[in-house]
Amino acid sequence: MPGVGEKDGMSDTALQRMVKKHGPSIDREIRRCLALGEMNTDFVAMMAYQFGYVDERLRPIHESIGKRFRPLLCLIACEAVGGSVEQAMPVAAGIEILHNFSLVHDDIEDRDATRRHRPTVWKLWGEAQGINVGDALFAIAARAILDASADIATVLDIARQFGDTARALTEGQYLDMTFEARTDVKADEYSAMVANKTGALIEFSLWAGGRIGDADEKTLNAIRMFGRELGKAFQIQDDISGIWASQDRTGKEPGTDLRNGKKTLPVLLAAEHAHEPYRTVLNAYARGESVDVAQVMDALSKSGARVYAEERVRAHLAGARLALGSAQLGATQVSTLLTLAAELTGQPVPRS
Amino acid sequence: MPGVGEKDGMSDTALQRMVKKHGPSIDREIRRCLALGEMNTDFVAMMAYQFGYVDERLRPIHESIGKRFRPLLCLIACEAVGGSVEQAMPVAAGIEILHNFSLVHDDIEDRDATRRHRPTVWKLWGEAQGINVGDALFAIAARAILDASADIATVLDIARQFGDTARALTEGQYLDMTFEARTDVKADEYSAMVANKTGALIEFSLWAGGRIGDADEKTLNAIRMFGRELGKAFQIQDDISGIWASQDRTGKEPGTDLRNGKKTLPVLLAAEHAHEPYRTVLNAYARGESVDVAQVMDALSKSGARVYAEERVRAHLAGARLALGSAQLGATQVSTLLTLAAELTGQPVPRS
Repeated sequence: MPGVGEKDGMSDTALQRMVKKHGPSIDREIRRCLALGEMNTDFVAMMAYQFGYVDERLRPIHESIGKRFRPLLCLIACEAVGGSVEQAMPVAAGIEILHNFSLVHDDIEDRDATRRHRPTVWKLWGEAQGINVGDALFAIAARAILDASADIATVLDIARQFGDTARALTEGQYLDMTFEARTDVKADEYSAMVANKTGALIEFSLWAGGRIGDADEKTLNAIRMFGRELGKAFQIQDDISGIWASQDRTGKEPGTDLRNGKKTLPVLLAAEHAHEPYRTVLNAYARGESVDVAQVMDALSKSGARVYAEERVRAHLAGARLALGSAQLGATQVSTLLTLAAELTGQPVPRS
Repeated sequence: MPGVGEKDGMSDTALQRMVKKHGPSIDREIRRCLALGEMNTDFVAMMAYQFGYVDERLRPIHESIGKRFRPLLCLIACEAVGGSVEQAMPVAAGIEILHNFSLVHDDIEDRDATRRHRPTVWKLWGEAQGINVGDALFAIAARAILDASADIATVLDIARQFGDTARALTEGQYLDMTFEARTDVKADEYSAMVANKTGALIEFSLWAGGRIGDADEKTLNAIRMFGRELGKAFQIQDDISGIWASQDRTGKEPGTDLRNGKKTLPVLLAAEHAHEPYRTVLNAYARGESVDVAQVMDALSKSGARVYAEERVRAHLAGARLALGSAQLGATQVSTLLTLAAELTGQPVPRS
């Protein structure tokens, strides 16, 4: 993802300031959720490892890893509509726990050996326990959100949306796996897949914050639409980073996704829209044929794929701004949300 | 498990009659839950396969597999306290779906190639999609229970217990996997493991039915205790069947669990309580050393392990009867629940 929350020697971004302000409370709440009940200590410690609370030998370490930007969006949405971050904290924690459930299982499915520069859960404790750790995180997330401080109708509403979001997440992951085996994936199908796999939870994070903060119907819809557009912008920018990332921003090498044979949106779009001779190269790559990475990079750059993908990011950011226009929010709240959107995607939000 | 719902040429048991009466409605509700939302057809079909609604090539078949006794317990508990089966149907379906989530993942973890005489989900579609199918079933189960027809405080209460139950399930599975690698598992530890892995959901099934039926506090506690004792009795009887099953009842060969090296309660109890020379044989087996199955069977039989285990089943059934004594239930309701308990375990419920 675009280097959220990373140090670059300059002054903190708005996002970094918010991570500093709310991150410790989010982690405190996650730890509380993990420790609930009569759980086996080692099992809980494996879960805690995923969040960076313990090291490989399950010894406590006093830092957290992962950027926590989903729970942060939930807290900020709640505050933006007049609620308090404390009210939304259990849901924020549940969101981050659900996100980590999906990471633990995805790592098994993709055979990924490292995440955030550390061995993955399944790599350390085997696939079977990896599945169990993920399952437990799912159960804990589903339980956590029910502790939101709101009237029970609101809590129930959030629980229903949470269930639907979790289902969308699993469908997205299912589609992602089927795409790997296919040679004819279209850009639109890819967009639908990532909308489920990563977009749904970002949208839920914002909507749930607004719901707990007791936003009126119109504002709530606006915040949800903002979340949906931000989710799409974020996903495309993430794909752009996977191809053209400069290391100082993301820690990724340029071309990483291409070397892994990933068929992400910029490639699929370019394969559909580029002129010859680039179209032939890109289509061969999209069909999974063996193509030189340098040649693909060249075809992408000469066919304007990056500019085209970045235009899509900005179009979704413009949609996000437009969505907020119909919300009953003060100028400060709107400005905060738009600043976060810009920082999360690394792109300016266009003026309407 | 003890041959629930199987034909033996004799007249139907009470359980078989109830399966005939409510089974179709339960399956209708499960199908409704699976089809909800904008899901990819093949993905839903993989889930439907687990329930026996489609065959390996995803073509519809008009039967269901699996015994559905957990949802049945939920419906009967609801009816026993004066509620209707319709009210409890979404929770009953959610219970069966959660149960199947755990089966799909357990089959991957245990590398089981067949279940109910058919290839397992992961065997047909690979581990990655097996994980995804299980995850989706979990999400669908969590969503299903929120549709229970009851006031929202009741629904929220059920959702909280459901989350805790799902977490207990995953802890039980975690412990089960660690036990396989251990050579020093004690009978008490084993009991605690299965109490989570299978007992928690049986207890929840009864409690949730009573809760939806709006049982008073005292009756609800009684039904929960009944469920807990029934769960324990059921588990031990299941272990007994795994060792001594006569094929006509369960379709299992005698000694199945021993050939698989499983360390179940009858063995662990006997290893702790038998006299020499049987104790040495049983302890060697329990430590995972290579021991002749016939020799273990002989040691179990001569040390009275089966009688001892069956006494435990009856003790828990007596506990189940005792629990119902404090409930505000009519004689007919009590009799129905006790009949089911006897049929599920294949043991008579002792008179108090």
